[in-house]
Amino acid sequence: MVRFFKKMSKKAGLPPGTLVGEVEKDTAPVKITVIDYDEKSYEERTAQASTDCRPLRDKPTVTWVNVDGVHQVDVLTDLGECFGLHPLVLEDIANTDQRPKTEDFGDYLFVVLKILDYDRDTGDLSTGQISLVLGPNYVLSFQEREGGVFDAVRDRIRNSKGRIRKLQSDYLAYALVDAVVDNYFVTLEQIGEEVGSLEEDLIEDPKPETLQSIHEMKREMIILRKSVWPLREVVNGFERRGPPLVRESTRVFLKDVYDHTIQVIDAVETYRDVLSGMLDLYLSTVSNRMNEVMKVLTIIATIFIPLTFVAGIYGMNFQFMPELGWHWSYPLLWLVMVIVALSMVAFFRRKKWL
Amino acid sequence: MVRFFKKMSKKAGLPPGTLVGEVEKDTAPVKITVIDYDEKSYEERTAQASTDCRPLRDKPTVTWVNVDGVHQVDVLTDLGECFGLHPLVLEDIANTDQRPKTEDFGDYLFVVLKILDYDRDTGDLSTGQISLVLGPNYVLSFQEREGGVFDAVRDRIRNSKGRIRKLQSDYLAYALVDAVVDNYFVTLEQIGEEVGSLEEDLIEDPKPETLQSIHEMKREMIILRKSVWPLREVVNGFERRGPPLVRESTRVFLKDVYDHTIQVIDAVETYRDVLSGMLDLYLSTVSNRMNEVMKVLTIIATIFIPLTFVAGIYGMNFQFMPELGWHWSYPLLWLVMVIVALSMVAFFRRKKWL
Amino acid sequence: MVRFFKKMSKKAGLPPGTLVGEVEKDTAPVKITVIDYDEKSYEERTAQASTDCRPLRDKPTVTWVNVDGVHQVDVLTDLGECFGLHPLVLEDIANTDQRPKTEDFGDYLFVVLKILDYDRDTGDLSTGQISLVLGPNYVLSFQEREGGVFDAVRDRIRNSKGRIRKLQSDYLAYALVDAVVDNYFVTLEQIGEEVGSLEEDLIEDPKPETLQSIHEMKREMIILRKSVWPLREVVNGFERRGPPLVRESTRVFLKDVYDHTIQVIDAVETYRDVLSGMLDLYLSTVSNRMNEVMKVLTIIATIFIPLTFVAGIYGMNFQFMPELGWHWSYPLLWLVMVIVALSMVAFFRRKKWL
Amino acid sequence: MVRFFKKMSKKAGLPPGTLVGEVEKDTAPVKITVIDYDEKSYEERTAQASTDCRPLRDKPTVTWVNVDGVHQVDVLTDLGECFGLHPLVLEDIANTDQRPKTEDFGDYLFVVLKILDYDRDTGDLSTGQISLVLGPNYVLSFQEREGGVFDAVRDRIRNSKGRIRKLQSDYLAYALVDAVVDNYFVTLEQIGEEVGSLEEDLIEDPKPETLQSIHEMKREMIILRKSVWPLREVVNGFERRGPPLVRESTRVFLKDVYDHTIQVIDAVETYRDVLSGMLDLYLSTVSNRMNEVMKVLTIIATIFIPLTFVAGIYGMNFQFMPELGWHWSYPLLWLVMVIVALSMVAFFRRKKWL
Amino acid sequence: MVRFFKKMSKKAGLPPGTLVGEVEKDTAPVKITVIDYDEKSYEERTAQASTDCRPLRDKPTVTWVNVDGVHQVDVLTDLGECFGLHPLVLEDIANTDQRPKTEDFGDYLFVVLKILDYDRDTGDLSTGQISLVLGPNYVLSFQEREGGVFDAVRDRIRNSKGRIRKLQSDYLAYALVDAVVDNYFVTLEQIGEEVGSLEEDLIEDPKPETLQSIHEMKREMIILRKSVWPLREVVNGFERRGPPLVRESTRVFLKDVYDHTIQVIDAVETYRDVLSGMLDLYLSTVSNRMNEVMKVLTIIATIFIPLTFVAGIYGMNFQFMPELGWHWSYPLLWLVMVIVALSMVAFFRRKKWL
Repeated sequence: MVRFFKKMSKKAGLPPGTLVGEVEKDTAPVKITVIDYDEKSYEERTAQASTDCRPLRDKPTVTWVNVDGVHQVDVLTDLGECFGLHPLVLEDIANTDQRPKTEDFGDYLFVVLKILDYDRDTGDLSTGQISLVLGPNYVLSFQEREGGVFDAVRDRIRNSKGRIRKLQSDYLAYALVDAVVDNYFVTLEQIGEEVGSLEEDLIEDPKPETLQSIHEMKREMIILRKSVWPLREVVNGFERRGPPLVRESTRVFLKDVYDHTIQVIDAVETYRDVLSGMLDLYLSTVSNRMNEVMKVLTIIATIFIPLTFVAGIYGMNFQFMPELGWHWSYPLLWLVMVIVALSMVAFFRRKKWL
Repeated sequence: MVRFFKKMSKKAGLPPGTLVGEVEKDTAPVKITVIDYDEKSYEERTAQASTDCRPLRDKPTVTWVNVDGVHQVDVLTDLGECFGLHPLVLEDIANTDQRPKTEDFGDYLFVVLKILDYDRDTGDLSTGQISLVLGPNYVLSFQEREGGVFDAVRDRIRNSKGRIRKLQSDYLAYALVDAVVDNYFVTLEQIGEEVGSLEEDLIEDPKPETLQSIHEMKREMIILRKSVWPLREVVNGFERRGPPLVRESTRVFLKDVYDHTIQVIDAVETYRDVLSGMLDLYLSTVSNRMNEVMKVLTIIATIFIPLTFVAGIYGMNFQFMPELGWHWSYPLLWLVMVIVALSMVAFFRRKKWL
Repeated sequence: MVRFFKKMSKKAGLPPGTLVGEVEKDTAPVKITVIDYDEKSYEERTAQASTDCRPLRDKPTVTWVNVDGVHQVDVLTDLGECFGLHPLVLEDIANTDQRPKTEDFGDYLFVVLKILDYDRDTGDLSTGQISLVLGPNYVLSFQEREGGVFDAVRDRIRNSKGRIRKLQSDYLAYALVDAVVDNYFVTLEQIGEEVGSLEEDLIEDPKPETLQSIHEMKREMIILRKSVWPLREVVNGFERRGPPLVRESTRVFLKDVYDHTIQVIDAVETYRDVLSGMLDLYLSTVSNRMNEVMKVLTIIATIFIPLTFVAGIYGMNFQFMPELGWHWSYPLLWLVMVIVALSMVAFFRRKKWL
Repeated sequence: MVRFFKKMSKKAGLPPGTLVGEVEKDTAPVKITVIDYDEKSYEERTAQASTDCRPLRDKPTVTWVNVDGVHQVDVLTDLGECFGLHPLVLEDIANTDQRPKTEDFGDYLFVVLKILDYDRDTGDLSTGQISLVLGPNYVLSFQEREGGVFDAVRDRIRNSKGRIRKLQSDYLAYALVDAVVDNYFVTLEQIGEEVGSLEEDLIEDPKPETLQSIHEMKREMIILRKSVWPLREVVNGFERRGPPLVRESTRVFLKDVYDHTIQVIDAVETYRDVLSGMLDLYLSTVSNRMNEVMKVLTIIATIFIPLTFVAGIYGMNFQFMPELGWHWSYPLLWLVMVIVALSMVAFFRRKKWL
Repeated sequence: MVRFFKKMSKKAGLPPGTLVGEVEKDTAPVKITVIDYDEKSYEERTAQASTDCRPLRDKPTVTWVNVDGVHQVDVLTDLGECFGLHPLVLEDIANTDQRPKTEDFGDYLFVVLKILDYDRDTGDLSTGQISLVLGPNYVLSFQEREGGVFDAVRDRIRNSKGRIRKLQSDYLAYALVDAVVDNYFVTLEQIGEEVGSLEEDLIEDPKPETLQSIHEMKREMIILRKSVWPLREVVNGFERRGPPLVRESTRVFLKDVYDHTIQVIDAVETYRDVLSGMLDLYLSTVSNRMNEVMKVLTIIATIFIPLTFVAGIYGMNFQFMPELGWHWSYPLLWLVMVIVALSMVAFFRRKKWL
C-alpha cells in the first residue's frame, strides 16, 4: 500500500487559493491544445506556453482548451485570469487529490473526475485527475497526466462525425465526461478478467498466493469505489444545472451517461461481493483441507499406537513372562493385532472418516 | 464465473446513439410479429424483415409489435424512424447490458427489463433483456432471445380472455411487465427447490461439494439481485407517468405488479439470508467434526503413549535392573497399566470428551 | 426448509384478478359468521354458504362478516360482488402469500396481515394470512385457517365490554388489527423462552444439537421478520387514511397499536442479535475446547515421546554399549527422566498451558 | 438471559386502556409526593393514597406530582381522571415495557423514558420506566421503582438554586428529562470502566471467562441500545411541540439535552465497536496460541519420532544383524541421531517456527 | 483503553449552565491573546487575566480573542458576560467532551471542533476541543490545550497575506475552521504511514504483535470517526446560517472546507476498510501456517509410526518367532520399510501435501 493519499498536508497553513505546483512529480513542459470549431469551420493549435486567450473566449465558436499536466502554476494562473476562474477552482485543478464533484459558479460549471489506469502486468491500479470547466462557449479540460482518453472525441470533431460539430459547448463537455466513463468500462473489464482467472486458480488449486491476490484485488476495489461512487452526484449536478449553460437537448445524453455511472457502480459492488465470496471459499477450502489432514493423522496414529504398545509389551525383558514361552503366542498376537486394526477401520468407516 | 458483464468497452469512443449489432452472437433472422386489435377486430402478422409501419402507427387500434432478436441494426433503425424513437433508446435496446429502468420521453415511455432463465441441470442462471416502448396506441417489445414469456398474453388477446381487448395500450404494456414478473416466480421456485435440496444434503452429509454448491448459489443470488432490485423503480416510474399515457384505471394493476416485485425482492433477500446461514452451519459443522477427530486422536495418544513408555523401560537391556528378575513384576505392571488407562478414561469422562 | 414460499408460479399467465381456489389444501366448507350490532341491538348468525348480503350492507348498524377459509372461489366472488370489491382484492385474499400491506380503494380500505402459529413441540413456526376490508359501516375479515385470534373481540361485542359497541366500523377494524398484533406477543414470548432455554444449554453443555437449534431459531427469525417488518407500514397506512373512513377518535388507538408493532419489531431484532451472539459464543467455545484438547495432547506427547526415545536407546541390542554394564545406569536414567519430565512441566507452566 | 421482555401477552384480548396492575411484583404502597411552587412560595407534601387533586390542578403555581410505583390501579385511575388523561396513557404508565416515546395529546405531552441501573458486583443491567406528563401548569412523574434520580431536581426547587423556581412547568419537565439523561452518563462510565478492566484481562491473560464476560457485555449493549436509540426522537418530539406548552426559552435547554442524548448514543455505539474488536482479538489470540501449541507438538514429534524408529530398528532380535556386532556402531548411531536432530532444528528455524 | 470518555457524570444533578472548571487537569494560568485588525490597522495584545472587553466588542474592526485553556471559570464567565453568551455555551466550552457541532444563537454562531494529536512514538491519538464563537465583528476561540494550529492564520493576519485583512469576522472564523481541518490531513498522513508500515510487516513476517498493532489502529479509527463524522454537519450548519453573519462571498470558501471534510471522512473510512482487510489477511495467514504445520506433523508421523510398529514387532522376545532366525530377514525388512515409506511419500504427493 504505502500511500493511499497524496501529500495532503503540504498546503496546511497557506491561504486558500494558493497554487502549489506539484513540480517534483513532473518537470515536462505543459502541453496546451486549442480546438476551435463550429458547424462549418475547424481550427486546431498546439501551444507550449499559455498565450493570450481572450480572443478565443470572445469568439462565438466552441473553444476547447485541453491542458496536459497541471504542475505549472503560471499556466493555470494565466488561464484562470483569462476565463475569470475563482482561485479555489485553480487550487482544485492543481491539487490532484480532489474527490469527483460538480460545482456551479454561476458563469461556469466546474467538474472534477478521476481516470483509472490499470496495469495488467503488475495488477496496479492508479488514478489520475481530470478537471473540466464548462463556460457558455468554451470548455477547458485539465489532465494530470497526458493520456489518450479524449482522442476519440477529438477525432469526432475533426471528422465531423456524429452531431458534435452542430452542438454547443455543453455537448462537448458531456462528450468528455462520457469518454471518461466509457474508459471505466475498459478498466472494469480488465479487472473482471483478472477476477475470473483468480477464481479458476481458486477452484483448481488454492495457494497462499491466491489469497494474497484476492486481498490485493479487494484493496483495489476500495480505491475504485472512492473514484466511482461520487460519479453519480457529479453527473446529477451537471444535469441539475439547467439552461442556459446546459441545454435541454443535452439532458437526455446526460441521463444516458448517468445510467452508465450506475452500471459502473453496480459492477464495482458486484466485484466486491464476488471477491468476498472468494475469500470465504478460500478459507473454507483451507478448513476442509486441514480437516482431511487431521483425519489421516488420526487414522494412522489411532491404528498403530495401540499396536506398537502391544509389541512393546512383549519386547520387555522380564524373566517371568509366561506368554513368551508359549508356542502359538506369536501367530496369535498377529491375529489379535489384525482384528484390532480391522475393527478400528470399521469404526472410522462408521464415522465416515474413510 | 469468467464473465459478469457483457463486452462493455466495445463502444467506447463511438458517438452516443451509434448502433452496433451484436452480430457475432446470433445470425438468425430477426422475427417480427405484429398484433393489431381493438374490442371487435383482431389481426396477427409475422414478418421477416421490417416493412413500412406508418399505417399501423396511425390506426386507432392497439398495435403490438414484438421483435425477437435485437442484433439487426437496420430493423431497429427502421422501427425507430417510423415510431420516432430517440437514437439513445435504440442504442439501449441493441446493447443488452442495460440495467432495468423506466425512461419517460414525453410521447412514449421506454422500459427495460431483465428476464431470467434458470437451467436446472447445470444450475446456471442466465439473463436476457426485454425492452418495451409504450406509445399512445402502440407497444413495441424487443426480446434479446426468442422466448415464450409473452405467449400467455398473446393467447389472452387472441381468445379475448379477460379485459385486455377492451382496454388500451397501457394495459397491454402492464400485461407484458406482469408476464415478466410472473416469470420471476417460476425461476424463484426452482431456485427454492434447489436451496431446499442443498439444505438436506447439508444436514445429512456435508461434503466439500455441498460447500461449492452453496457458493455457486450465493453467486447466482448476486446476479439475481442486480436484475431484481431496480424492478421496483421501474414499476414506480411506469405508474408515476400518469395520464394520458398511463390511464387511471391501469394504476391499480400497476400497484399489484409493484406488490409482486416487492415479493420477488423479499424472496431473493430471504434466499441470501438462508444461504448465509447454511454457509455458517457448514463451517461450524466442519469445526465440530474437527473437534471430534482431535478428541479421538488425543484420547488414543494420551492413553497409549505413557503405557508404551513404560513398556519401553522394561525393554531396556541394562544388566542391573532388579525389577526384571522379580517374579510378580509382569502381572503387577499389567495392573498398573490398567489402572493408569482407567484413570485416563475417567479424566476424559470428567472433561466430557467421552 | 424445503419451501419458503407457497406455490407462486401457479397463476403465471392468467389474467390479473383470476381467482384460483387453493382447493388441494382444504376441502372443508368455508364458515361464515355475521355479527351485526350497534349500541343497543346485537345479532349473530353463522352461515355455511354465502347468502345475499345486500341488506346487511345497507343497514346503518356495524356489520362484521368473518370468513374462515379462503379456498372457495364462489364465496369470495359473491361477497366481492355484494360489497363492490375490486377483482385484485379478491385475488389477494385468495392468494395467501401476500406481504402485509394496506391499500386504499377510496370506498374501502384493504388490509393484509400475517398471523403466526408457533408449535412449541416441533419448534415450527407457520404463518397464516388474515385479510380485512373496512367499509363505511362494515368490516369483512378473511382467515386462511380457522383460529381463535378474534374470539376476545367477539366476546367484547357480545358482552358490550369496553367502548366497542358505541363506536363505528373503524374501531372494530382497529380491534381486529390489535388482536393480531397482541397475538404476536404470545408467539414472541414462547420464542423468548425457547431462546432462553437454548442459552442455558449453550452455557452448561454446548453440543452440536444446540448449534442446530440455534440455526433453526435464526431461520425462524428470517420468517418472522418478513411478517413483522411491513406491519409498521400497514398501521401507518391505516392511520393516514383519515376521515370519513377512519375517524379522528380512532387515531389515538391506531397510534397505540403502532407502538406495539414497533415493540414487536424491536423484539425480533433483539432476538436476532441475541442468536447471533449465541452462535459466536458457540463457535468460540468450540474453539476454546479444541485448544484445551490440543494442549492435553501436546503435553502428554511432549513429555513422553523423548522419554520413550531414551528407553528405546537402551533397548538396542548392540554388543558394545558400555552403559548397559554399569551398575548405576538404571537408577541414573530414572533420575534423568524425572528431571526431563519436571522441566517439561515447568516449561508448560511458564507458557500457562497448565 | 431467560427474559428479555416482560410478560407482554398478559393483556392480549383485553380492551385497550384496561389497567392491569403488576401486583405480583410489588405490594408496597405507592408513594406520592406533591411539590407546589412559584418564584416566591414553595410547598411539599407526601401522601400515601391519592387525594383529590383538583385544587392543585387549578392553581396557577407549578405543581409536580411524583408517583413512586405504578402497580396500584386505583391511584393511576384517580390521577388520570383528575388531570383528564386518556386511558391509553394510563395503560402505558402501568405497563412498564414501553419503548421511550413522546406523544402529544393536545392539552398535555406524554413522555416515556427508561432509567438504567447497573449493578457493578453482578454486572447486571436492569431498566426501569419513568413516565412524565407535562400539562400547562403541572408535571406528573411516575417511576416504576423508587429511586433517587430526581433528588437533585427536588433540591434545586427547595433551595431555589438556578432558574428553576422562576420558570414554568415545561422547564421542570426538561429538568426531569435532563436528570434521567445525566443518569445515563453515570451508568456509561461504570460500564466503561468494566470494559477497560476486561480489556486489560484480555491483553494480559485471555481466559474463557473473559470471553464469557465480553459476551455478557455485548448482550447488555443490546439492552442499552434499545433504551437509548429512541431517546433522540423523544427529545425531538418534546422540542417540536412548541408553544404554548413548551416555551421558546426552554428550547435551547432541550437542544442541550438533545446533544447529550447524541453523546449517550455515540458512547453506546463506541462500546459496541470496542467489544466487537475485543471479541475478534480474543479469537485471534486463541488462534495464535493454538498455532504455538501445534508448533511445539510438531517440533517434538518430528524430532523424536524418527529417532525412536532408529532405536527400534536396533532393538530388533534378528539373529543376523551385522551392525549389532560392530564395535563403533553405538557411538556412530549417536552421531547420526545428533546430526538428524540438528538438521531438523535447522529446518524449523528456516520455517521460522523456532 | 481505560477511558473513552472524560468524566461525564461529574455534573449530574447540577443546574444546566453551571460552570465546573476542570481544575485538576491544568493549573497553569489561562493565556488570552487579542488581535484587532482591519485592512489598514493591526494590533496584538496578550493578557493573563481577562480585562474589560467591551471597547473591543464595540469597535468596527475585526476582533479575535483566543483563549488557551478553558479551566478557569472566571475567565469564561467574564468573556461570556461581555459578549452576551448563553450560559449553556459557556458550559459547552468548559466541558471538553462535546461532540463537534454548530449552534445558531441568533446574534452569534457557536462552533465546537475537535483537534487531533497523534503521537508517533507511542501511537497514541488524543483529541482536544476547540470552540469558536462568531459574532458580527468578533471571533472568540477557545483551545483546551495550547497548540500551534492557529499560528499560520495569525501570521497571515500579521503579514497581511492573502485576503484575510480585507474581509470580515466570518472569513476569520472560516480560516480557523480551515486550519483545524487542514490539521486533520497532517494526522491522517501520519496514520497512513503507520498503516503502510504495518502492512509491510504483515506481508513479510506476521507476528502476534502485528495483530495487536492492527487492533490498536482499528481502535484509533473508532475515536477518529467520532471526531470526524459530525464535521460535515458542522460546516453545513455554518454555511446554512447565511447573511448577515456569514456573507455570500464566504460561502464558496465554506464549500471548499466542506469538500475537505468529505475527503477526511473518506480517508478515515478507507483506513477502516484497509485495516479490516489486514485483519482478515492476518487470520488467513495464521490459518495457512497452521495448515502447513499440521501437514509436516502428519507426514512425519504417518511415515514413521507404522515403521516403528514393525520394528517393535521384531523386538519382541517370543521364543518361537521363525522370522528371527532367517538369514535374509533383516535386509528384507529394510526393503519393505523403504517401499512403505516411498509409497507414503507418493500418497502425499498425490494429495499435494508435498
